[in-house]
Amino acid sequence: MSQKKAPEKPTGNHTSVEMEMADMVGKPLGGPGTQPTKPVRKKSSESMTSDPDLYYSVEDLRSEPPPGEPVSNRIRPMLGQGKHEAGALFFKDGYRRIDYVLAFPVPRRKHPVKVEHKPEDDSSAFHPEGEDQKVRRRREFEKNLIEAGLDLERDDETKDHGMCFVRLHAPWKVLSQYAEILKIKMPTKKIYELKERTGIKAKAYALWRKTIKPLQPSPQAKQVDKEPYKHISYTFSRDKEHMFHIESRETFFKPSTRSLVVHEILKRTRYSQKDYAIGITNLIAQGVYTAAYPLHEGEFEGDTDIPPNPRQMLFDEWGSYSKFVKFQPLNLIRNYFGEKIGMYFAWLGLYTKLLIPSSLVGLIVFLYGVFTMDDNVPSDEVCEAYNITMCPLCDRECKYWRLSDSCKSAKFSHLFDNEVTVFFSIFMSLWATWFLENWKRKQMELNYAWDLSGFEEEEEQPRPEYEARLVKHRIEQSDKTGQGYGSASGNAEDSGMGEEVKLPKKQTLFAVGVSSVTILTMFTVTLAAVFAVIMYRLSVASALAIYPNSGQIVSGTAVTLNLIVILILDEIYGSVAAFLTNLECPRTETEYEDKLIFKLFLLKFVNSYASIFYVAFFKGRFMGRPGQYIYAAPGLRMEECGPGGCLYELCIQLSIIMAGKQLIQNNVMEIGMPKLKKFLRECTCFGLCKERAERAEDKAGPRDTRWEEDLVLEPFSGLSPEYLEMIIQFGFVTIFVASFPLAPLLALVNNVLEIRLDARKFVQELRRPMAERAKDIGIWYNILKGITKISVIVNAFVIAITSNFIPRTVYQYMYSPDGSLHGFIDWSLSTFNVSDFEPGSEPRDNRSLGEVVQFCRYRDFRDAPWEAEPYKYNLAYWHIFAARLGFVICFQNFIIFLRDFIGYIIPDVPKELDEQIKKENKIMMDALIHEENVRQGEVEMDPEKEPL
Amino acid sequence: MSQKKAPEKPTGNHTSVEMEMADMVGKPLGGPGTQPTKPVRKKSSESMTSDPDLYYSVEDLRSEPPPGEPVSNRIRPMLGQGKHEAGALFFKDGYRRIDYVLAFPVPRRKHPVKVEHKPEDDSSAFHPEGEDQKVRRRREFEKNLIEAGLDLERDDETKDHGMCFVRLHAPWKVLSQYAEILKIKMPTKKIYELKERTGIKAKAYALWRKTIKPLQPSPQAKQVDKEPYKHISYTFSRDKEHMFHIESRETFFKPSTRSLVVHEILKRTRYSQKDYAIGITNLIAQGVYTAAYPLHEGEFEGDTDIPPNPRQMLFDEWGSYSKFVKFQPLNLIRNYFGEKIGMYFAWLGLYTKLLIPSSLVGLIVFLYGVFTMDDNVPSDEVCEAYNITMCPLCDRECKYWRLSDSCKSAKFSHLFDNEVTVFFSIFMSLWATWFLENWKRKQMELNYAWDLSGFEEEEEQPRPEYEARLVKHRIEQSDKTGQGYGSASGNAEDSGMGEEVKLPKKQTLFAVGVSSVTILTMFTVTLAAVFAVIMYRLSVASALAIYPNSGQIVSGTAVTLNLIVILILDEIYGSVAAFLTNLECPRTETEYEDKLIFKLFLLKFVNSYASIFYVAFFKGRFMGRPGQYIYAAPGLRMEECGPGGCLYELCIQLSIIMAGKQLIQNNVMEIGMPKLKKFLRECTCFGLCKERAERAEDKAGPRDTRWEEDLVLEPFSGLSPEYLEMIIQFGFVTIFVASFPLAPLLALVNNVLEIRLDARKFVQELRRPMAERAKDIGIWYNILKGITKISVIVNAFVIAITSNFIPRTVYQYMYSPDGSLHGFIDWSLSTFNVSDFEPGSEPRDNRSLGEVVQFCRYRDFRDAPWEAEPYKYNLAYWHIFAARLGFVICFQNFIIFLRDFIGYIIPDVPKELDEQIKKENKIMMDALIHEENVRQGEVEMDPEKEPL
Repeated sequence: MSQKKAPEKPTGNHTSVEMEMADMVGKPLGGPGTQPTKPVRKKSSESMTSDPDLYYSVEDLRSEPPPGEPVSNRIRPMLGQGKHEAGALFFKDGYRRIDYVLAFPVPRRKHPVKVEHKPEDDSSAFHPEGEDQKVRRRREFEKNLIEAGLDLERDDETKDHGMCFVRLHAPWKVLSQYAEILKIKMPTKKIYELKERTGIKAKAYALWRKTIKPLQPSPQAKQVDKEPYKHISYTFSRDKEHMFHIESRETFFKPSTRSLVVHEILKRTRYSQKDYAIGITNLIAQGVYTAAYPLHEGEFEGDTDIPPNPRQMLFDEWGSYSKFVKFQPLNLIRNYFGEKIGMYFAWLGLYTKLLIPSSLVGLIVFLYGVFTMDDNVPSDEVCEAYNITMCPLCDRECKYWRLSDSCKSAKFSHLFDNEVTVFFSIFMSLWATWFLENWKRKQMELNYAWDLSGFEEEEEQPRPEYEARLVKHRIEQSDKTGQGYGSASGNAEDSGMGEEVKLPKKQTLFAVGVSSVTILTMFTVTLAAVFAVIMYRLSVASALAIYPNSGQIVSGTAVTLNLIVILILDEIYGSVAAFLTNLECPRTETEYEDKLIFKLFLLKFVNSYASIFYVAFFKGRFMGRPGQYIYAAPGLRMEECGPGGCLYELCIQLSIIMAGKQLIQNNVMEIGMPKLKKFLRECTCFGLCKERAERAEDKAGPRDTRWEEDLVLEPFSGLSPEYLEMIIQFGFVTIFVASFPLAPLLALVNNVLEIRLDARKFVQELRRPMAERAKDIGIWYNILKGITKISVIVNAFVIAITSNFIPRTVYQYMYSPDGSLHGFIDWSLSTFNVSDFEPGSEPRDNRSLGEVVQFCRYRDFRDAPWEAEPYKYNLAYWHIFAARLGFVICFQNFIIFLRDFIGYIIPDVPKELDEQIKKENKIMMDALIHEENVRQGEVEMDPEKEPL
Repeated sequence: MSQKKAPEKPTGNHTSVEMEMADMVGKPLGGPGTQPTKPVRKKSSESMTSDPDLYYSVEDLRSEPPPGEPVSNRIRPMLGQGKHEAGALFFKDGYRRIDYVLAFPVPRRKHPVKVEHKPEDDSSAFHPEGEDQKVRRRREFEKNLIEAGLDLERDDETKDHGMCFVRLHAPWKVLSQYAEILKIKMPTKKIYELKERTGIKAKAYALWRKTIKPLQPSPQAKQVDKEPYKHISYTFSRDKEHMFHIESRETFFKPSTRSLVVHEILKRTRYSQKDYAIGITNLIAQGVYTAAYPLHEGEFEGDTDIPPNPRQMLFDEWGSYSKFVKFQPLNLIRNYFGEKIGMYFAWLGLYTKLLIPSSLVGLIVFLYGVFTMDDNVPSDEVCEAYNITMCPLCDRECKYWRLSDSCKSAKFSHLFDNEVTVFFSIFMSLWATWFLENWKRKQMELNYAWDLSGFEEEEEQPRPEYEARLVKHRIEQSDKTGQGYGSASGNAEDSGMGEEVKLPKKQTLFAVGVSSVTILTMFTVTLAAVFAVIMYRLSVASALAIYPNSGQIVSGTAVTLNLIVILILDEIYGSVAAFLTNLECPRTETEYEDKLIFKLFLLKFVNSYASIFYVAFFKGRFMGRPGQYIYAAPGLRMEECGPGGCLYELCIQLSIIMAGKQLIQNNVMEIGMPKLKKFLRECTCFGLCKERAERAEDKAGPRDTRWEEDLVLEPFSGLSPEYLEMIIQFGFVTIFVASFPLAPLLALVNNVLEIRLDARKFVQELRRPMAERAKDIGIWYNILKGITKISVIVNAFVIAITSNFIPRTVYQYMYSPDGSLHGFIDWSLSTFNVSDFEPGSEPRDNRSLGEVVQFCRYRDFRDAPWEAEPYKYNLAYWHIFAARLGFVICFQNFIIFLRDFIGYIIPDVPKELDEQIKKENKIMMDALIHEENVRQGEVEMDPEKEPL
């Protein structure tokens, strides 16, 4: 895919290295490095025991320099000489690329420590006993890395203290071997010609491409083959090397693939003969190394005259706010950060893109509300209802009020609760499905374009924490049984292979139990918080009831309070989820991630939506009726929806929480936190501060090396927080969209910023992550699907129960004398005889506009006081109730049907892509068969016979 | 998996061949055949022009016999000598296995025909002009097969007429090459040790295994590795041949893999230089060959003293009715018929197995109904309601009747409409989900066990019909443009590669339009048929109204009529669907299948269920009320449910149609049709009759050869009919299960037979199909899922609307004075004043039991005639209505929730399997890395270093 780009060059101002590079690059296949290099090998047991000094130079162990290199380079001693050029990405020979860096601290010491080689006991495998052991492990590990075929370059360790770096280079032999084993697909020489389309479709397509051209990232950032040609990819195989499109062995494997291969080796290499003494992760957990990371490819802000390095390109094309209308350079992202991160940004990009139509429709719906505000019969009737006396909204203190007082909120309510709301809900439910279907397709396209189709997962290594726990458990076990632990697992073969590689169920169950209880407790905390805010609202409302317009203030402060509580709890829940997951101590990194995500999602989802659910479905539903109010606590009547109705309140609640959450959480905190963290890191900076400060003073002196600069960056900590944030937002956009059509627009604005913000974070502030492969977005897809399902039923109920849509419709078609909504307001109010108030609940002031009130009205459908069974639900109530339920059934099944239909007609794999993949497979297979035949000399080179 | 079984041996009584075989098998790797054999090659152009006689012997072209063979065999002339042993599966040399057979007829002729080689023109490519061309194509095709590396053996063509056979053998070289290209996974030497389980779980598991042991097929038929060891499979690769578990190159690839490879070659081989002149399918379509098939492995009924061949094993272990309680020998089926057919039987087996619990629960529900029949309050009240006069069920002729007359059907109705019906519906909805989840897991297990995980689909070749249509279209086009067609596509390279390889959209659209219209018409036909039966029922009912008990007769005949109509239409629709799909002329076989399935499913589904849907949801719903009946046609009142209620009728309808359909369609016709077809084939028998009859007469003479016997068998025509039959049954089991709890039991009984019936068909009566690979059951899974979704909503409505569950519940909790059902019957009947009958609709006989009737009762909830608004729906009606709708919402969402929950907690990949797969991948990868290192001599052979 991306083999066209120029090979990475060091970006510093060190022309000599650059010249050397240029020479190398120009050379065709078979240039330096293509001969398998034979490292000078020492027998392992020998080197373990006879090496006199632990601070050995790796020089003697590393592979011979490539034959093309001048001899002076080969014998140049490593220690103390030939400083690295600042920012260079190559070994000192200027030729071998640094694919990975390991960093470890050198403690302050007086003279080189001598360590005797003594057998380690197992308990110490996870309780390192100091520098000696660390040094021993490092030495063993690095020796094994060299045996695995990597080239190492190590800093001079004679310096007093500070960080020491080991730089790793994967030569062709190792890369090609692992590419084959990892089944990495690489471009072959076989070219697939994309069909030129003809006809109207093609013209429309060309026009479309021309239109969106300004939105595309610049061509160099797109990194695709020149159309209409495409090199077909095939699983790399060394014995078919000649079939692959190798311009130069140096650049055939992308940096991200190189780092993947090195990571694979780091993961598998032993550092001692004990069980589980495998892999860099354990070493980092034990503090043997501080960090292991691939290098960024130069500075992100460089001189503009040289061809920009990929990091610069990313920064300019992707991280720049001025590029906010452009598509993301996905191939560049993938080549730089790997497929997993590429997938996230592809997903985010698609989501943001598809938010555009829904924002537009939402805006139209809103504008429709604005423009029809004055023609709306029910709100006009409210505004003119000077003579309708409403029952007071709270006991004693509240007064009777005129319906016309709620004129403004009735008009406002119309903005969100009008005829097109139902349509918009349907639209958004389908939109959500459409988005998911589109994502499935996009994912397939990416799988194809990024050659992921053959990628299979293998068993992961257990997490270091799990292994430590396991060892501890075994020791306890052996203590109990009286057997020495050493003897029980003395044979590393046995126990590595063997039976008990898992923690006992009891421990796990206990942790799961604790988790469940804690999560339930947290739910209760959330609900308590919601309840507390309700209490606040109730008490303040009745206290302030005498002041006019106090309602607005009470609502406003209550919602703000809600928002603050949500934000605080969100932070707490983040820690709680991490704590609980650590307690459960899952075996592998994937399990850990899945469990953490599950908890985070549950807690944050409930936290974000609890108050909204309350307003939508509970507020004002269980308040009884005048004369028979239901009390939450003595003296505190259950909340009634304000004069504007329930949907109006829902809308306010939703908009403030959504906007506030995004503004504060996503933007302020996401910008602020990294800056704060960076500041803190700058202060400690791994003991590099002094060195760096000295260098910075001496402007003529050498600059910081690339690996020093990268070490100070924040390590990449996974995509879960990014995904979660977006998923919660997706919930706002879909679940309650019926009540707030502007939600998609809010989300869109946020995401456009979010992409660039994340981009800057990845390019600027994070250490370059290892380029992981991933075929999909994993568990998040299922969560999205779940939210989509929830959204259908919630929307159905919001329309049926919270909005006034059903009563209006029932009135219009069953009760209205002329089929219009005239008279609806009067019909929707029941009458109450004030003499039926429970003693003590009647208002202090029994007058309204100077007259003593005899009857007041309230929103409900009950028989009048003078009928046979006063205050019994009347027939209209049952009609409306049946209509509400009927609506839910119809709405839900209609959407489910449409959703499945959309899922059916949109194939998961785009048809053209499907054809192309199959065609490519066929071409490739024919080519292979042909290849075989040619190799065995069975077919004459008859050009007519060549497969198509 | 299955490499342990003995190599296939010829089953005839020819010991000499057997001895030879035994010798071969005993030899280790590197025995005969391991040297790449170099066939004597002729330059293609030469042989095309200079071969003087078309009836050439293939002997001179075929590869040299393996070096171990005696020289006498090598020079033994082929023609006229050394008849094949009867039933032998090997070439005459007794050593090379026959992997595929091509058959073609030899016309009656006087002397060998000489054909000049002249360039063919394209139009003739699809209009073969006689024997000459056929002979030429055959020759070219067979030459190319030999060039592709196959060994051929051809019958003597000098015989006057009859069938001629070409037998194909794939030598090791071809097999290994294609296995690599097709990415076939094969067992390696690397062994995975399955963990011995310990603890209670293991004991339970052991006990379980012991319990079901009698149900397992016999060990030899299971064909698995000896536990606890399993050879890990890995994509075959020739340069890693030493890593694979090859006991003998002769038996390493299973017969099904061999036939797959040969089929692959047959598919790709050219028979002329023209476009599309590729592949055996085209040749068969053109009549160049009559058939191409792999051979069955001997007789299915053989002597019992020799070790049974796989076909015998299948027949004994699988096709025998006496084995009906046993599991199917799935590995054996897969090894014999390939993965696709294996998948079908695995699916059918799982479905049948899981029907057992649902049958049991269904039976319990039914028995509950039986045992509580006498304690049922409503039916007791019906039986005692001597004094309730019901309004007549039809105009004029019908009399008033006593509610107590419907005592029997009320009691019967209770069998299916009782308290546990809701529970059973929920159970069955979950069961369906559980079944699908289980199938997903089973599928994963099979994918793993059958090594299918790496299998990718490649582009299929167009169907011959499509190509013919395309050529025709091109000729028309070139005629129009005036260009000669020959010149337009003279360059085969271009047009094969090039632009127009598809039919124009217009043609396709036209066909799709015709299809849609036809399908809609067919729907109308179905509905018309249902309507006609209703009309029949209405008219006969009113004609027979004067006779007592005529109702039963009318219902019975009507349902039978329905059944007959369904059966007839099913047959018609089968042809219609095939016809329409042919009209659409899809490009590939998969497309063809998908389109055909879609049509078949739509038509047959609607046909099977239309009448049932009518009874469930429409019958008795739209009949108006006494005094205001609604008329379907003048004089024909809309149908009312019988005295037993609607669910009772639904139950009758369902049971008769389901039982009848299964009995007649699945069993009678499936047994009868093949017999009939076989009889017809025996009559024509491809001109082999005379020969065979002669041989049969001469008992001492040679028996029929295997390929002759197989040719006479029925060709395999795909699995769609088998699947469709089961899917329709699945619909009966799930969609309306609320009304007929015995449906699963019926299905179970049918399927137990069905499996054995199908097994016998495959083993006995079908030509052996090519062993196709398939990872899943394809489109059928989605159809199953769709049916499951439909079933939830239909069940919800059946319970809410058709059954009396909701009215009973509402009465019990809202109206009953004592919380019991006493008084329910009276409450559920409204009163009608007979003076309000529309003139002409009142019954002729205005008396009941001698008294003149003043008021009659009818089933509805309306106000009494003496109330303010007579016959208006009363409050109870609205309560019940709201309850019905509320029930649907709760039921549906509850099930959806539970379903998703089940889907969430049952992982798609069984956890153990997932771990095992990942572990195997890791072991394999470690082994590969180790292997590499060993090969390059970089790691000492330190046993401690060997990866785990």
